[in-house]
Amino acid sequence: MKTASTLTHLECGHCGATYDAHRLMNLCPACSKPLLARYDLARAAQTLTPQALASRPANLWRYEEVLPVQRREAMITLGEGWTPLIHAQRLGQAIGCPNTYIKDESLNPTGSFKARGLSLAVSRAFELGARELAIPSAGNAAGALSAYAAAVGLPAHVFMPRDVPTPFQVECRTLGASVTLVDGLITDCGARVREGVEAHGWFDVSTLKEPYRLEGKKTMGYELAEQMGWTLPDVVIYPTGGGTGLVGMWKAFDEMEQMGLIGSKRPRMVTVQSSGCAPMVRAFQQGAEFAEPWQGAHTVADGLRVPAAVGDFLILRALRESHGTAVAVTDDEMLAYARQMGRHTGIFPAPEGAACLAAQVQLLEQGWIQPDETVVLFNTGSGLKYAHLWA
Amino acid sequence: MKTASTLTHLECGHCGATYDAHRLMNLCPACSKPLLARYDLARAAQTLTPQALASRPANLWRYEEVLPVQRREAMITLGEGWTPLIHAQRLGQAIGCPNTYIKDESLNPTGSFKARGLSLAVSRAFELGARELAIPSAGNAAGALSAYAAAVGLPAHVFMPRDVPTPFQVECRTLGASVTLVDGLITDCGARVREGVEAHGWFDVSTLKEPYRLEGKKTMGYELAEQMGWTLPDVVIYPTGGGTGLVGMWKAFDEMEQMGLIGSKRPRMVTVQSSGCAPMVRAFQQGAEFAEPWQGAHTVADGLRVPAAVGDFLILRALRESHGTAVAVTDDEMLAYARQMGRHTGIFPAPEGAACLAAQVQLLEQGWIQPDETVVLFNTGSGLKYAHLWA
Ligand SMILES: Cc1ncc(COP(=O)(O)O)c(C=O)c1O
Ligand SMILES: Cc1ncc(COP(=O)(O)O)c(C=O)c1O
Repeated sequence: MKTASTLTHLECGHCGATYDAHRLMNLCPACSKPLLARYDLARAAQTLTPQALASRPANLWRYEEVLPVQRREAMITLGEGWTPLIHAQRLGQAIGCPNTYIKDESLNPTGSFKARGLSLAVSRAFELGARELAIPSAGNAAGALSAYAAAVGLPAHVFMPRDVPTPFQVECRTLGASVTLVDGLITDCGARVREGVEAHGWFDVSTLKEPYRLEGKKTMGYELAEQMGWTLPDVVIYPTGGGTGLVGMWKAFDEMEQMGLIGSKRPRMVTVQSSGCAPMVRAFQQGAEFAEPWQGAHTVADGLRVPAAVGDFLILRALRESHGTAVAVTDDEMLAYARQMGRHTGIFPAPEGAACLAAQVQLLEQGWIQPDETVVLFNTGSGLKYAHLWA
Repeated sequence: MKTASTLTHLECGHCGATYDAHRLMNLCPACSKPLLARYDLARAAQTLTPQALASRPANLWRYEEVLPVQRREAMITLGEGWTPLIHAQRLGQAIGCPNTYIKDESLNPTGSFKARGLSLAVSRAFELGARELAIPSAGNAAGALSAYAAAVGLPAHVFMPRDVPTPFQVECRTLGASVTLVDGLITDCGARVREGVEAHGWFDVSTLKEPYRLEGKKTMGYELAEQMGWTLPDVVIYPTGGGTGLVGMWKAFDEMEQMGLIGSKRPRMVTVQSSGCAPMVRAFQQGAEFAEPWQGAHTVADGLRVPAAVGDFLILRALRESHGTAVAVTDDEMLAYARQMGRHTGIFPAPEGAACLAAQVQLLEQGWIQPDETVVLFNTGSGLKYAHLWA
């Protein structure tokens, strides 16, 4: 059975070249930059209404019209998305910013927001005939790929840095993936995936190297608007590695405005990185269009240990268009603010999630955020996979 | 603001004595057995309709009429409940029982179904004026209490066996709870909690020792019916420690029938325990009303290491009334079936969840389950907290 998808074509985020959406694609064949999915938004708007949404399934597939999957049988779901947006009242009082909200992405399958992107990427890869899937990952994306590949029965090859915490490895193996530990960083893992693509015809589902993880991640933007009654907060703080979530939400806001679901008001978007690996913060401060690779990347927040991102220019563009900013926080701050978030909210965050709180406090002190503004922090994953950090 | 709760009174599950529901209660003052919450179901049925439910929030509070909380401000929520019911098609084919479903409770806050019970217990304890909360726990319940206590700002005292895996301890501490590790089992932890109750006036939220954890857990039964279009499966397999989930679902089915939401058909309820601690299996086989405490309890499934349960007679009653059964599986089976579940579904289960699959295969082999029957397995928690078991 057909879905209500209004997908029309793919468009390069850099050179603007357009492509047929109904075959497997990675980067833009013309300029090697990320491809973006485009929809017939006028048609989508006819059925994607606040009223229709009120009785749709409690997962990201509620936004079917603006998702790429064409056949119902290809919607591979484990219950991803529609995560709670928690008004963190006690935390807000403690830090002097009462309208602080946490979007708790740890309630996704495999305990992180990576489930959104990989649900879409695997669904679409399956629909378009991929036979084996491969990913370089700091950990959470590997777990998510393993899960969706297992759900649909495709082999998954995951490549993670050798020092990835044990729970990530165990999760992937228990989900039946073939796991390779690589001496080096996620960029080195990426090189190993490319070898497998050449040698065995694997399909590469690296961040932004295929168009559909972004489409899964953008649903965070749709949910934020829907959960806030079709308004958006003043500030969104997002822990940025490859940047799919940030770029995805920015895309979602634009689509929603075109469909008349929201007005033109946008949140100021804030990228948080670790002071041990902050290529986007540096590039933002330098006013650069692209980010130089970060040398000697190190941080306990594995998801932020991304020295180079193919979507760098898209991240920087969203920050600037939104009048946002980019902030680095230390590992010690992440660990301490995780405790503060935990004891004032009941949410045990990943260090990446705690980084958002550290950034919020920094920006409140600087006066960049006003105490009466509405701020949404993204807790992108569960602290459980990183429990050793606080042991 | 008042909720739509139709709570009327408390009733002892053993001696039938009734009590005012609007003050803090533990066991029945007359006979020391569990108290059950009772509602005006005729009134609840007027508004708790399938149609009304279709647009309610995607958490357990959708069943507000049959939940005990009286004031909206006392609904302490982190997004618990309304977990996905996954049709495990590939797994079902592999084991020869195509209509196999998994209710994936690992998508709850703190990664287990314990969030349901503790959300309700903490909400209600807060509403009725408790000042400090205490719990003996195998691990998951401690994490859930810590989370909800932190959300509302009440001190939590958690007591766990000394050998509880590190992630459970770290989770509780990061959530600000005071953690005591006890030499012994959950029953020994219970004794320590009773000392604190005497000495400091803590409120004891042990399984079935206060009436409202059961009310949270029963929502699994409501969700099952709603997600299956107001029918119930042929068989439900549930990993049983203290038994709140099983007893709670059984109560939910009864309430739903009284409200006209379902007919009189019931699933056969199956209790799974570990062969290293199987007091309910032994009592069921002996035809006993109560279960003798299990000596020398040991199993990797911490949640099943419960040598004695105050609700034993309620568990055994539900198994018998439903024409169900009780099955023991070994630790090795749990570990192996976790892998099978993982690679065929994308769900990385807790050993307790994997035990359900082991039991299903056993019961299929014995012919107790027919291949064309609809079977629901409860994956009560995430494998992530137990990752060391497969490392
Ligand atoms: C928990 C967590 N937060 C944040 C990130 C970074 O996400 P993105 O690549 O969307 O910038 C990751 C990536 O691995 C992650 O695992
Ligand atoms: C993962 C898990 N499954 C099952 C159980 C047993 O649950 P119940 O006490 O409702 O029988 C527990 C209890 O600790 C648990 O943590």
